[in-house]
Amino acid sequence: MNLDNFFTPKSVAVIGASHTPGKVGHSIVKDFLKAKFQGKIFPVNPDTTPILGLETYASVKDIPERIDLAVIAVPAKVVEKVLKECISKKINSAIIITSGFSETGKEGKKLEEKLKKIIRKKIRVIGPNCLGIFDSFSKVDTLFLSEERMKRPDKGNIAFISQSGAVGSTILDWLHEENIGISKFISYGNGIDVNEVDLITYLAKDEKTRVIAVYLEGIKSDGRKFFESLKRCCKIKPIIILKAGKSEKGTKAVISHTGSLAGSSEVFSAVFKQTGAIEAANWEEFFDYIKVFSTQPFPRGERLAIVTDGGGFGVLATDEAERQGLVLKEPSKNLRKILEKQLPPYVILHNPFDLSGDATAERYRIVMEECLRREYDGAIAIVLFQVPTLDEKVVDIIPEIAKKYQKPVVVCSTGGKFTLKNVGRLESNGIPVYPTPERAVKAFSLLLKYKKQTFFKK
Amino acid sequence: MNLDNFFTPKSVAVIGASHTPGKVGHSIVKDFLKAKFQGKIFPVNPDTTPILGLETYASVKDIPERIDLAVIAVPAKVVEKVLKECISKKINSAIIITSGFSETGKEGKKLEEKLKKIIRKKIRVIGPNCLGIFDSFSKVDTLFLSEERMKRPDKGNIAFISQSGAVGSTILDWLHEENIGISKFISYGNGIDVNEVDLITYLAKDEKTRVIAVYLEGIKSDGRKFFESLKRCCKIKPIIILKAGKSEKGTKAVISHTGSLAGSSEVFSAVFKQTGAIEAANWEEFFDYIKVFSTQPFPRGERLAIVTDGGGFGVLATDEAERQGLVLKEPSKNLRKILEKQLPPYVILHNPFDLSGDATAERYRIVMEECLRREYDGAIAIVLFQVPTLDEKVVDIIPEIAKKYQKPVVVCSTGGKFTLKNVGRLESNGIPVYPTPERAVKAFSLLLKYKKQTFFKK
Repeated sequence: MNLDNFFTPKSVAVIGASHTPGKVGHSIVKDFLKAKFQGKIFPVNPDTTPILGLETYASVKDIPERIDLAVIAVPAKVVEKVLKECISKKINSAIIITSGFSETGKEGKKLEEKLKKIIRKKIRVIGPNCLGIFDSFSKVDTLFLSEERMKRPDKGNIAFISQSGAVGSTILDWLHEENIGISKFISYGNGIDVNEVDLITYLAKDEKTRVIAVYLEGIKSDGRKFFESLKRCCKIKPIIILKAGKSEKGTKAVISHTGSLAGSSEVFSAVFKQTGAIEAANWEEFFDYIKVFSTQPFPRGERLAIVTDGGGFGVLATDEAERQGLVLKEPSKNLRKILEKQLPPYVILHNPFDLSGDATAERYRIVMEECLRREYDGAIAIVLFQVPTLDEKVVDIIPEIAKKYQKPVVVCSTGGKFTLKNVGRLESNGIPVYPTPERAVKAFSLLLKYKKQTFFKK
Repeated sequence: MNLDNFFTPKSVAVIGASHTPGKVGHSIVKDFLKAKFQGKIFPVNPDTTPILGLETYASVKDIPERIDLAVIAVPAKVVEKVLKECISKKINSAIIITSGFSETGKEGKKLEEKLKKIIRKKIRVIGPNCLGIFDSFSKVDTLFLSEERMKRPDKGNIAFISQSGAVGSTILDWLHEENIGISKFISYGNGIDVNEVDLITYLAKDEKTRVIAVYLEGIKSDGRKFFESLKRCCKIKPIIILKAGKSEKGTKAVISHTGSLAGSSEVFSAVFKQTGAIEAANWEEFFDYIKVFSTQPFPRGERLAIVTDGGGFGVLATDEAERQGLVLKEPSKNLRKILEKQLPPYVILHNPFDLSGDATAERYRIVMEECLRREYDGAIAIVLFQVPTLDEKVVDIIPEIAKKYQKPVVVCSTGGKFTLKNVGRLESNGIPVYPTPERAVKAFSLLLKYKKQTFFKK
């Protein structure tokens, strides 16, 4: 059974749909309507008064049409009965939002075991104890968190998998803030059926997904299968993983949190290394890597040019480049000659290129264009928008040059309102922006390292 | 000669004041007026038509009053003459904004040497090639960058020293964005007279300054003096230093940038360690440390409580705590009993405390208050504002508890508009907020490490 019905169902039953605003079963119906989901929605509730104007059914069995996906948000004790009804209705995909299972202790664990027995290849289940799915294309949205508190990202090419709903929701909210789109988001909670292996395998084949990002506490799947599916899928597209629970105490915290065993951190790191998955060391790297992988092409070679209007930032970037093992090649005599002709004499034609404190957008254009056209494989522009002479046009120039030469370009900018406005425009045009020179360099260097790995087939 | 006249002059001559909006010599006069500087301002320009309504003088010598501070923004070649006039007028402090000296090569170097000879203890000089000073209390403001592009921070307790004007200006802009105030900002450029040693020594005694932050490329002072003044001043207040130009290539970039020798990175790190200065490894740590040191008291002991409504974030914070050598002590039986009575049974009463996905502001209040009152020396609250049940009151509760128990509290929050609004409110109330759990933990652990150092007298 494949997972298509989770992401592109034509008809959805929301079992436990509620008449009461604020309740989970109400929010889910509302989210589907608000997101302009193109399929049909069938609320299910013993009280068959219409919910949000939709005809409501007492049981899923009463719905007179075929149902592709059931979203279950009834109390834990009723889930078993509802799931059986779904199976008898020949629904092959269900998301169980409801919590109160193995994560709460012994009693919950028993309930969960019962569900597992019912499932036995008759239906595919995501959850329980999860947020479910957000698909930016089909508009499946079971997240039940209000738009006011948690914005949904636009369409994009990142698929995001998270056991934890809370972690997942903050990431979605942040992605929206940073103008980064996603293809699919899946929070699979206790993962009693569909697990990380199923999802990674599915997303590796998904045409809308270019990068798979995974927040992992422990694995629900068999270790060997996990290893093999990762190895297979890493050959198809980049998989970025943040593994939480790496410390001894952190492992214990994972057990309290999702009831799953975190496993030894060394084992996980070894698995990621051997399979070619990209391991983020922390939350920030996770963000930073997602951003650069989802927007930039891989560099063809190692020659990176750093261009800045703030000499000090050039120095910090150079320090980080050395830490990351990048060699900043100096411009050739020929390139220097070409640049000298077009620039004032005090512009520093070393790498990093220092355009000086009276830099203009045009100076950025000249240096970045000549560098990328002639002898560099990528560029980092460290733009200080505080510089009075710098025309805002620079935010159009940079993406244009990046596109023209199909080479990776990363920007660093730090500052207040004026800077943030320009950062937003750069990001909307597909250029990842980082607030520190070191993070920009690190993101670029990761692209290069990934490219150089042997398992990567271009 | 002390440096008071740079920061609290009663009368300022702006030599090279201009009638033309946009010019440096115009912006400086405008900034003084706009900032509501309380002293007198005397523009100096051969064309004595009033500038911005102020009576203008052909020469500083023509001003009929005593002048405490001269701000010089005339072309490089004229600086020598103007400086001599200042000395004959018995002005004892001057800021030379003008660039075009040693940073541009041989010719400039010669000009700079001439200035040094003129100075010889007759006048104290900041610059040349600098932004000068911003004092948030007296409103001395020579920064000549428009408010539109670069906001000025409010009054606060951080003094910030930067050779580089560009780096300095982005920091000021960012501090404003993060609601962090400063006491004084000094960009001293080529530092031909007043250097880092003078400034650190002065600021160590400055009552308005609690933390000294220094962005350093190389030192202008004698190495021994630098070491000794650092050692002396670090006993008085925390000094946080970001040293750029640590790599081989970075050192070369420093030479291009400010014409000063960066020196071996190992030597600098050793100096910082021996003197008790706090070295930030990169731009981000620099920010993060400034924030926590300027707002939080030092913890009395090592017992840190982590409180969150997102279990996954608790795990990531725990991982980082272990990396930082922090032991997360479990709550005592007694504390658990007290908490159990007030909280639902599924709230996890281990450290990290997981308030669960239906957390309320009241739950945060109960756990943080009981923890800080009874057995913890500080707390990190990881607040997911996406959680629907969480009342915004939590942004008032957290600063209240921190204040009540006079213990360090740090917050972590990630997300979009709704979150950012609340983060702003927390920061305005003196609580530092970090966007990742790891950075929050690292900032807290640094407070503790600093406190434990023997040189720290408290």
